[in-house]
Amino acid sequence: MNAASPHNTDPTGAPKPLLRQNITESAGSTSSAGFTLRAAAALKIAVDMVRQRLIKKEEAIMRIDPDQLEQLLRPIFDLKEKAKVIKDGGFLTKGLNAGPGAASGKVAFSAHDAEVMAAKGDKVILVRIETSPEDIKGMNASVGILTAKGGMTSHAALVARQMGKVCVAGAGELQIDYKKGTMSVESNKLVIKQGDYLTIDGTTGEVIAGQVATMPSEVVQVLITKELDPKDSDVFKTYKDVMAWTNSVRQLGIRTNADEPEQAENAIAFGAEGIGLTRTEHMFFGEGKILPMREMILADNLSDRKKALAKLLPIQRKDFEGIFKVMRGKPVTIRTLDPPLHEFLPHEKKEQEEVAKALGISTKVIKEKIESMAEFNPMLGFRGCRLGISYPEITEMQSRAIFEAAVNVAKKGISVKPEVMIPLVGNINELKIQAEIVRKVAGEVFKKKGKKVNYLVGTMIELPRAAVTADKIAEVAEFFSFGTNDLTQTAMGLSRDDAGKFLPMYVENEIIPKDPFEALDQEGVGELVKMGTEKGRSTKADLKVGICGEHGGEPSSIDFFHRTGLNYVSCSPFRVPIARLAAARAALRNPRK
Amino acid sequence: MNAASPHNTDPTGAPKPLLRQNITESAGSTSSAGFTLRAAAALKIAVDMVRQRLIKKEEAIMRIDPDQLEQLLRPIFDLKEKAKVIKDGGFLTKGLNAGPGAASGKVAFSAHDAEVMAAKGDKVILVRIETSPEDIKGMNASVGILTAKGGMTSHAALVARQMGKVCVAGAGELQIDYKKGTMSVESNKLVIKQGDYLTIDGTTGEVIAGQVATMPSEVVQVLITKELDPKDSDVFKTYKDVMAWTNSVRQLGIRTNADEPEQAENAIAFGAEGIGLTRTEHMFFGEGKILPMREMILADNLSDRKKALAKLLPIQRKDFEGIFKVMRGKPVTIRTLDPPLHEFLPHEKKEQEEVAKALGISTKVIKEKIESMAEFNPMLGFRGCRLGISYPEITEMQSRAIFEAAVNVAKKGISVKPEVMIPLVGNINELKIQAEIVRKVAGEVFKKKGKKVNYLVGTMIELPRAAVTADKIAEVAEFFSFGTNDLTQTAMGLSRDDAGKFLPMYVENEIIPKDPFEALDQEGVGELVKMGTEKGRSTKADLKVGICGEHGGEPSSIDFFHRTGLNYVSCSPFRVPIARLAAARAALRNPRK
Repeated sequence: MNAASPHNTDPTGAPKPLLRQNITESAGSTSSAGFTLRAAAALKIAVDMVRQRLIKKEEAIMRIDPDQLEQLLRPIFDLKEKAKVIKDGGFLTKGLNAGPGAASGKVAFSAHDAEVMAAKGDKVILVRIETSPEDIKGMNASVGILTAKGGMTSHAALVARQMGKVCVAGAGELQIDYKKGTMSVESNKLVIKQGDYLTIDGTTGEVIAGQVATMPSEVVQVLITKELDPKDSDVFKTYKDVMAWTNSVRQLGIRTNADEPEQAENAIAFGAEGIGLTRTEHMFFGEGKILPMREMILADNLSDRKKALAKLLPIQRKDFEGIFKVMRGKPVTIRTLDPPLHEFLPHEKKEQEEVAKALGISTKVIKEKIESMAEFNPMLGFRGCRLGISYPEITEMQSRAIFEAAVNVAKKGISVKPEVMIPLVGNINELKIQAEIVRKVAGEVFKKKGKKVNYLVGTMIELPRAAVTADKIAEVAEFFSFGTNDLTQTAMGLSRDDAGKFLPMYVENEIIPKDPFEALDQEGVGELVKMGTEKGRSTKADLKVGICGEHGGEPSSIDFFHRTGLNYVSCSPFRVPIARLAAARAALRNPRK
Repeated sequence: MNAASPHNTDPTGAPKPLLRQNITESAGSTSSAGFTLRAAAALKIAVDMVRQRLIKKEEAIMRIDPDQLEQLLRPIFDLKEKAKVIKDGGFLTKGLNAGPGAASGKVAFSAHDAEVMAAKGDKVILVRIETSPEDIKGMNASVGILTAKGGMTSHAALVARQMGKVCVAGAGELQIDYKKGTMSVESNKLVIKQGDYLTIDGTTGEVIAGQVATMPSEVVQVLITKELDPKDSDVFKTYKDVMAWTNSVRQLGIRTNADEPEQAENAIAFGAEGIGLTRTEHMFFGEGKILPMREMILADNLSDRKKALAKLLPIQRKDFEGIFKVMRGKPVTIRTLDPPLHEFLPHEKKEQEEVAKALGISTKVIKEKIESMAEFNPMLGFRGCRLGISYPEITEMQSRAIFEAAVNVAKKGISVKPEVMIPLVGNINELKIQAEIVRKVAGEVFKKKGKKVNYLVGTMIELPRAAVTADKIAEVAEFFSFGTNDLTQTAMGLSRDDAGKFLPMYVENEIIPKDPFEALDQEGVGELVKMGTEKGRSTKADLKVGICGEHGGEPSSIDFFHRTGLNYVSCSPFRVPIARLAAARAALRNPRK
């Protein structure tokens, strides 16, 4: 096996390059590096023709498929090597392709071990039955994440896509034994132990025993890992030209979904014009942050809850300051707490004991709390603004953190543009109540600090009822952002995490044209987006309307959002270039007046 | 305590009358019997005024509140007695008021014990942590059902409402110990053992230790239990006149949701004009029916599945024959299989062992199947037509049972009018595929039996996507029936079983005007009903549109359905009189052209 020398994992999660020779070796072959070279060639031809004035840049844009651009950005396998490893009996199983790309490294069965191994210079594949908030640092230290349980919106899948990590989730066949430190499948005799090499293909969902060489794209090497000088990369020069042209053509704004300064920085490097979604809950997942969050949730009275929230305030403020600094006046949409609170509680016995000890309570209390918070359908449960309405002190703390951070950064001469976004609103009254809290706190902070900043208060439109009553909601909302992930789930009555049992068959038999979580269902869910936009603007003609579901990075959906008159799409950092190209192509196809 | 002599529980579940003296005793008091008398008096005054030609029947109808009529139909407590029992420390806890009415009897902790005790002449309150298909006979033998777990759409709650049983569900404080045969709550020292008296108030959700006298309404005594001669009941005469008047005024048809001939018979006695919803899955819950159903689910290949389905065919056919016979040519809407299959599997160890033994498989297989079928959000999961599309042989078997039953009954000279309804359709293709199966099987059966019957194939509209694309769906559907329970859950992103954590607070603080599961949310969910109706009729001008959610029995919702131009509402048998009155009032308020 073409084993590369161990490399450090860098904090962006982009794997460092293996031996450059792989590119040469595989050129012209059917390897994925070969595909990338062909994609690069296609781009280069289009760009060269513009340089030689044979075609206009608009025509070049129409000639470049977003898929070709995507090829250029992904970490890739040497397909020959991969095929050989599979031929030698390495194939284990298939899971969900939750985080596209290629990853190969040594197995760690705990986040802690992943960190230790990465610190020693190993490339690590973190293998868990499922991941939880405590695994964040271990996930960040790994090049790939593999889980046995959970769907496309499981913790592992969401965090992986956010970090740009390769991820295969919900590989249900996997038998993971933490005690023995092994994993196996019934159909293959191989037993993988901690430290063994494992390869996961986040594009196909394949899980393979053994090592396969991978490398990041040259664009990523220039923009993100900064290991490659732009001068030395023709691929990057091509990319840069195309991206510049898209900007002169497109009419849709491109924002990013980012929860951390680093992600925001990456997105800006890729050309993002603002943040369309900061999920504040992801901020609670880091070390030293989850405990006060749990203390808040376990509190059974207002006073204890406020005490815990007071501990969270400086943590959130610092996170927001970091983001505002990086964004330098670009708009930052911050969503108040959204997921069900039980997602933050520890579910393993050992962890429960640790939390109980740290908080000076019994594990029985924790277990009872978890039991009492269990839900039949958490997707449709006690979450979103329902939390902030039931516990206004949470929205208060989050607003205070946002505005204190904004004023602190503004005082340093860096302009700030916060947009506070209330999730899961179905009814204008919900937004009224939450917006009132946000505005009250903003006023208090501005008065106390002696400085004001401009801000907006708006809402997610992610429930069919919100789309249907958008004319009313727009009386209060200063902006809309369609949450098309949840809107797809509710409009179609389709749990993304459970749909694996029949959705692939539906797509295969053309009962529905495409997986609606990948490409927006324009006829149904799209109709609600259109309705919500039109109704909202019937009340407020200049209402700013965006979309921050994962469809914001998918070309056919972006075309729809352009035609529907949205102001911007927001997608994960690594999808920003694709969104820019897709938006430009949409504008060329159907220019807006 | 005014202990009545033991009475048999009759199969309708309506408790037999206690000593008649209770009515006299409580007249003029603040007892619930007193309330009923006042309601009866209000009705009687209105009727008398018509008889004396002082007002027209239309005015009388507008004077009678549906709530007053409802009072007249419910089994009731002697409130004095109830207050005394509570004062003496009998109050235990409160659960969800899942099946309105008054019930008092001896506790049984298993369905089997409930049957044995009822056979001995005891009135029984069945107490379970939660109920499952095997409990059906025990539930039917009981006067009331109490569960510790589960919400307003739990098995216990649904079945209880269907049977007209009193039910308190999800009383979470209850500690039920099956082994010891006891139940208790922390806040009360009383420990209730099997055979002890217990009282549940299905209208308030109260659970009370001890016995309180109850009685069925006179209307029920005349129409359902047939123990009272109509001549002897002024209340019934009043009821009869009012009901006759509603028929001459209302423009909405009134159907019923019924899964058994007996329920259908009750509904007809109350004036139902057809069945709007037969849930075929409830038919699998009886003895001798659940095992082949489980065999079908546990089958891991088509051939085994078909073998099990062949066992279910004669069972379903017999059930349908029973219903067609009772309905005598009135339309019968039969919904194909809807709930997730895992709901049919046994969840207790003992049961799993029994099933394993009966099917000659290991309990491990059953446990693994249950695990593999578990869902994060079953409400949005593998259910509805997704089952029939994945396993067309299920829809085939159900269609065959429907049409064989229809032809068999028609051959006896009884006319039949089956309407096959496909659930959870979100996309026209789903309906196309299922309708094709239904029509193919119908043709086969008619050919083989040498006799045809008229039938329709239609669909539930219970997903926002279905409402939004109703113009397309109407190309295939011969009728629509709005499933407003699920439409409310999906449109509002609100799991009925989980909403207890914040919904009461929402209603209390007027964030939303009413519990949307009780009264239709006209502004949001209603807008989707309107949209679906208009879009459907834009394709098929004469499309028959009904509604079979529980809103079909709620007056303000019925008013909305009337205004929206629906053809009929369908509600549980015991709500039929209320629906008739509400429909008449709606027609008087807003007469259709």
